[in-house]
Amino acid sequence: MLGPFARGQGATAGSIPGKPDLRVLSERPLNAETPAHLLDDAVTPAARMFVRNNGMPPDTRGIDRLEWTLELAGESCVRPTRLTLRQLQERFEHQTLQLQLECGGNGRSEFSPSVPGNPWTTGAVACPRWTGVRLRDVLDYCGVADDAVYVAYESADTHLSGDPERQPISRGVPVAKALEPESLVAWAMNGAPLEPLHGFPLRLVIGGWSGSVSGKWLTRILVRDRVHDGAKMGGQSYRVPCSPVAPGATVSDGNMCIIGSMLVKSLITFPESGACRTFGEAILVRGHAWAGDLGVRDVFTSIDYGATWQHTVLRPPANRLAWQQWSTWVAPPEPGYYEVWARAVDDNGVSQPVVMPAWNPRGYLNNACHRIALSVT
Amino acid sequence: MLGPFARGQGATAGSIPGKPDLRVLSERPLNAETPAHLLDDAVTPAARMFVRNNGMPPDTRGIDRLEWTLELAGESCVRPTRLTLRQLQERFEHQTLQLQLECGGNGRSEFSPSVPGNPWTTGAVACPRWTGVRLRDVLDYCGVADDAVYVAYESADTHLSGDPERQPISRGVPVAKALEPESLVAWAMNGAPLEPLHGFPLRLVIGGWSGSVSGKWLTRILVRDRVHDGAKMGGQSYRVPCSPVAPGATVSDGNMCIIGSMLVKSLITFPESGACRTFGEAILVRGHAWAGDLGVRDVFTSIDYGATWQHTVLRPPANRLAWQQWSTWVAPPEPGYYEVWARAVDDNGVSQPVVMPAWNPRGYLNNACHRIALSVT
Repeated sequence: MLGPFARGQGATAGSIPGKPDLRVLSERPLNAETPAHLLDDAVTPAARMFVRNNGMPPDTRGIDRLEWTLELAGESCVRPTRLTLRQLQERFEHQTLQLQLECGGNGRSEFSPSVPGNPWTTGAVACPRWTGVRLRDVLDYCGVADDAVYVAYESADTHLSGDPERQPISRGVPVAKALEPESLVAWAMNGAPLEPLHGFPLRLVIGGWSGSVSGKWLTRILVRDRVHDGAKMGGQSYRVPCSPVAPGATVSDGNMCIIGSMLVKSLITFPESGACRTFGEAILVRGHAWAGDLGVRDVFTSIDYGATWQHTVLRPPANRLAWQQWSTWVAPPEPGYYEVWARAVDDNGVSQPVVMPAWNPRGYLNNACHRIALSVT
Repeated sequence: MLGPFARGQGATAGSIPGKPDLRVLSERPLNAETPAHLLDDAVTPAARMFVRNNGMPPDTRGIDRLEWTLELAGESCVRPTRLTLRQLQERFEHQTLQLQLECGGNGRSEFSPSVPGNPWTTGAVACPRWTGVRLRDVLDYCGVADDAVYVAYESADTHLSGDPERQPISRGVPVAKALEPESLVAWAMNGAPLEPLHGFPLRLVIGGWSGSVSGKWLTRILVRDRVHDGAKMGGQSYRVPCSPVAPGATVSDGNMCIIGSMLVKSLITFPESGACRTFGEAILVRGHAWAGDLGVRDVFTSIDYGATWQHTVLRPPANRLAWQQWSTWVAPPEPGYYEVWARAVDDNGVSQPVVMPAWNPRGYLNNACHRIALSVT
């Protein structure tokens, strides 16, 4: 039996083709997360990458992907134009980076009082290797006016209502984030063309921020002279109270601020929660840690509910904005039931909280520690 | 509104004469705890000391307290004898110490799965000033044989069933703990004779261990040649699994071990949870910390759910086994809702866990951090 905080375990697998082990949270739109122990790879394979949709993915069967057209536009785009995927590949330097994406609502199921939205436990995070061109090279080609504020996307997915005038989601990031060298317009994941659920044939990849800004099925990039006002930019979507509120509070729109960088966080991917081990045997424990725009300085583990913490061995990231692998050996002092906790600390010295942090109306940014159960006999 | 972990707030006062502010948890036997903000005194006044009974207190109205008789006996007592309270006062050196008592089940209400017993939140702890004689002086008078293992008590309270053959509780401690210079046979609290609910006219005070070993209405001290086998020494009473078990597990008697020293813990006593403060004003926060047989090395506070922790100013104890006062100023960075957490670290470097530690069948030894809510406007 697991303690009340050993989250994300006991997966009921769904039935997504190519992703047999994912846990389906909603069918329409399709959303599915990955049990923690199935995220053990340093580079997340497509089969184990979470699925997050706001609308219905476009039907891209049979298209010529190299003819897919990306429009560059917006008030602050100096030379509005169109580029096919073939032209993108021909005109700009290619870049391959491992970039970590996490849904803004990952961990939402733990909020109390509970909040609406997909009840993600720990599995809406992944770190594949992406190939494409730098968004900043594309933006240079279009020309970014001095008054540019935001870079936003529009996509080919359709609204659940079926209304072609309504976009399911159209979000963006401040210009500075868009211009970072790791922000990509990508056509491949782990060396293969993007899969349909992950944005085939073209998408944005903005590492370290809520996955919602990494627009899939990319059709337009807008250089805006204002904070982007597309679908899911306002109200309670991907926004949290500007100043902390009491759990369950009603928050006015004027006091809601857009989420930027995700927070420091870690995941235990080995062993699987509920694992049994023999007493006397040192137990290998490992996982990943990430910190949004920052690096991870330290990861600690505890087997005594946080009374004491031990350093782990932490590897540098493959590149900036990739998650980092950590591992350690734990040696329970006697047979019995244990919970192993992991706690990461970012480059600024800020730690994951052990439990759910500041409550917010839609349950974003829960970066509480992950815990697994372990039986030693 | 308070977060889910802001415990022990919103007291419904009971109606115990002389203790109007205590929250009554059960009427028969009478058990009552003190809301955290009413434990702010460095030395706990009788009016704010928690009440823990296992049976019915004796009717001591009208007795001549100086004629109260204490019997010294047991297999390993060399010279069994009797002493009146007057003789105790005349024959042994008097000692006054501030000693901290905490119910072994303090914090029980937080266990998940829930466990039977009084649902204490945070208020079954106190630290009055006690006057009496050293238990070791009394034991020397009686003579402790080389084969002595345990020192136990019997008392004048009666079993809830009314059966005079049944004792409500008769517990003890290993000889080494009994012989510590702080273990007292006490007749006064805060300079006044003991109150009826606190053991008038004579009791044991064994600081730093579960309050259940500080027998009230003391009639006999037994020097045992074995681990004491009185009421509430066996089964699940004041015992926890010898090795850690999964939450909700069934534990055999053979795998249950007697509780010894209580664990490191702290309490925020000022301000009261739910307090409002003006933004810009530094906020004084203070409380107590204790660590059973050990001292407290550090107390930290956090206003960001444990992401960062700040040192507090910590005073040394009045004497060994007294709690320690700590205080600090917190400065919330912006208006909003905050939770203030306190976390103490003992002399061995072991910290309070942030949340409920190892589950056990009766919910003992929950030393999770205390949290209060604070509104800054």
